[in-house]
Amino acid sequence: MENIIDLLNWRYAVKRMTGEKVSEELINTILEAAHLAPSGIGLQPYEIFVISNPEIKKQILPIAMNQAPIVESSHLLVFTVWDEYTKERIDHVFDHLISKRNAESAFYERQRHFAKAFFGKMSIEENFHHAAKQANIALGLAMVAAASQGIDTTPMEGFDPTGLDEFLSLPSKGLRSSMLLAVGYRDDENDWNLKNEKVRKPMEEFVTFFL
Amino acid sequence: MENIIDLLNWRYAVKRMTGEKVSEELINTILEAAHLAPSGIGLQPYEIFVISNPEIKKQILPIAMNQAPIVESSHLLVFTVWDEYTKERIDHVFDHLISKRNAESAFYERQRHFAKAFFGKMSIEENFHHAAKQANIALGLAMVAAASQGIDTTPMEGFDPTGLDEFLSLPSKGLRSSMLLAVGYRDDENDWNLKNEKVRKPMEEFVTFFL
Repeated sequence: MENIIDLLNWRYAVKRMTGEKVSEELINTILEAAHLAPSGIGLQPYEIFVISNPEIKKQILPIAMNQAPIVESSHLLVFTVWDEYTKERIDHVFDHLISKRNAESAFYERQRHFAKAFFGKMSIEENFHHAAKQANIALGLAMVAAASQGIDTTPMEGFDPTGLDEFLSLPSKGLRSSMLLAVGYRDDENDWNLKNEKVRKPMEEFVTFFL
Repeated sequence: MENIIDLLNWRYAVKRMTGEKVSEELINTILEAAHLAPSGIGLQPYEIFVISNPEIKKQILPIAMNQAPIVESSHLLVFTVWDEYTKERIDHVFDHLISKRNAESAFYERQRHFAKAFFGKMSIEENFHHAAKQANIALGLAMVAAASQGIDTTPMEGFDPTGLDEFLSLPSKGLRSSMLLAVGYRDDENDWNLKNEKVRKPMEEFVTFFL
């Protein structure tokens, strides 16, 4: 893997992709990176829907402002998040954790209790925002993993969430869409955004040091 | 840089750090990775406060549930986000973008207008949540950058946000704290969490394929 800064400079918001397929092995690397992301209290309140079927992508296109990467990507990743941190979901995570670590302990029971109290005090809408924040850490890791393999990604939040949720039957699963990540290969010839200089705010507006 | 999956498996939620200093060069690499993160409409609605002063860290300790990495880290990064996407802030970003790219165009004016309309329709609290979601992409990139240099990080959201905001005078800057990231070196001998197996939900509960 190259130097991380080189990788992040190579990465840009790809607006046109070639449609070339990303291999199953490389897609699995990207998904595994997201899978390994840390999350608050380890709850991983998100799931990824991976869409490579061209017909399904075509149907998503108008729900997502007709952005070309929806259909020109190899795989379209839909990051979906829990609509609510229910007690059942929290129990499921802790039961799994305890069985894997083979360690029933007062520590885990305190954490389990803390999680239920922490999210129980929030509104359902705050639960959703919290879950979506966690999912974006995973999205960031997936983007770096892709770049490390020479694969492009375009994160997109310009879509109709209600429309996409309905289309993917997310409400029946207790999930809501939070972000799209198109995965594929840049179309060097046709992507007008490739020529644009990457612009970020000046470093002095970004960082404050307390030395 | 090593294989990304190896890096992410090496990474874990470090609970005890040695206090050893991370060099200025490496801290700058981590900050630059966060700086290069993508964000919705390129607004970068976040700033990072970098705290290496031991006295200041000591004062933050009780505000952050007395978590050891607050004071045992080399640098404590406080991710802060805009309390609101104001028209002035959006203008500032677009004016900078246009001056850097030397391209006054109808395209950028449409984007500027879109951004103001998009965030103007949200509540102020939704503005904050949106900004905090963007900041977590940058946090993810910073964590990978650190791992790529053999540096540990601990993301923490267990703190009193109002207390921390007050302490850092964030309200006067129109900012709110969203996440803490302790940056330093793991204490192999004393960190009980190092021996714990990394547990994630089963892959079949994480990914759904539409082939």
